[in-house]
Amino acid sequence: MSVRSVDDFDYSEVTAGTGTRTQVLIGPDQGPNFALRRFVMEPGGGMPLHTNAVEHEQYVLRGGATVRIGDVTHEVRAGDVVYIPAGTPHSYDSTGQEPFEFLCAVPNAPDTIEIVGC
Amino acid sequence: MSVRSVDDFDYSEVTAGTGTRTQVLIGPDQGPNFALRRFVMEPGGGMPLHTNAVEHEQYVLRGGATVRIGDVTHEVRAGDVVYIPAGTPHSYDSTGQEPFEFLCAVPNAPDTIEIVGC
Repeated sequence: MSVRSVDDFDYSEVTAGTGTRTQVLIGPDQGPNFALRRFVMEPGGGMPLHTNAVEHEQYVLRGGATVRIGDVTHEVRAGDVVYIPAGTPHSYDSTGQEPFEFLCAVPNAPDTIEIVGC
Repeated sequence: MSVRSVDDFDYSEVTAGTGTRTQVLIGPDQGPNFALRRFVMEPGGGMPLHTNAVEHEQYVLRGGATVRIGDVTHEVRAGDVVYIPAGTPHSYDSTGQEPFEFLCAVPNAPDTIEIVGC
């Protein structure tokens, strides 16, 4: 596959979140260095404070959310660029009337997710 | 910077193209493994057939274009996911009434661009 509509990719539920689904748009089987995923969080959904072993490079496509990164809370919306360093606690709360949608690229490296107590 | 609007990033002209500008949204100074850029091609603009030393993972944000990848020509539009392997000849022709805009992620590795004769 060289060109494919985002609507044609399967979704997986994100069990660590609520009302949150993800698609692997370009996976390690295709991209040798990093993966491109899309996340969709329904209004009221999100993910609790957690860490990952890998950094996140993100671009917000639609909607809005409250995103905590480390000790700082941000109100993000479509067109925002978000960088989350590896190991930094972060959370998402989808706050808009429409789904919060964003792209999230991560390196092809082992990842673990750890939920952080607030 | 953890969160920043795409409207706040500077543009650079892409000299190998016509009517084409780019922004580095997350560069090698911030992301340790790969960079996230945005390209904007005005209607009628684009880039001639060329190769890069690194792969491209792309997501189309707006507009439409004729994109050649290897020997195959695609009509792409917003919401399309595009993968261009390293070393594969590719070109862009912005064909819509509005600018053709896409994200393009590349690994942090030396790149060279070589224009290919048609």
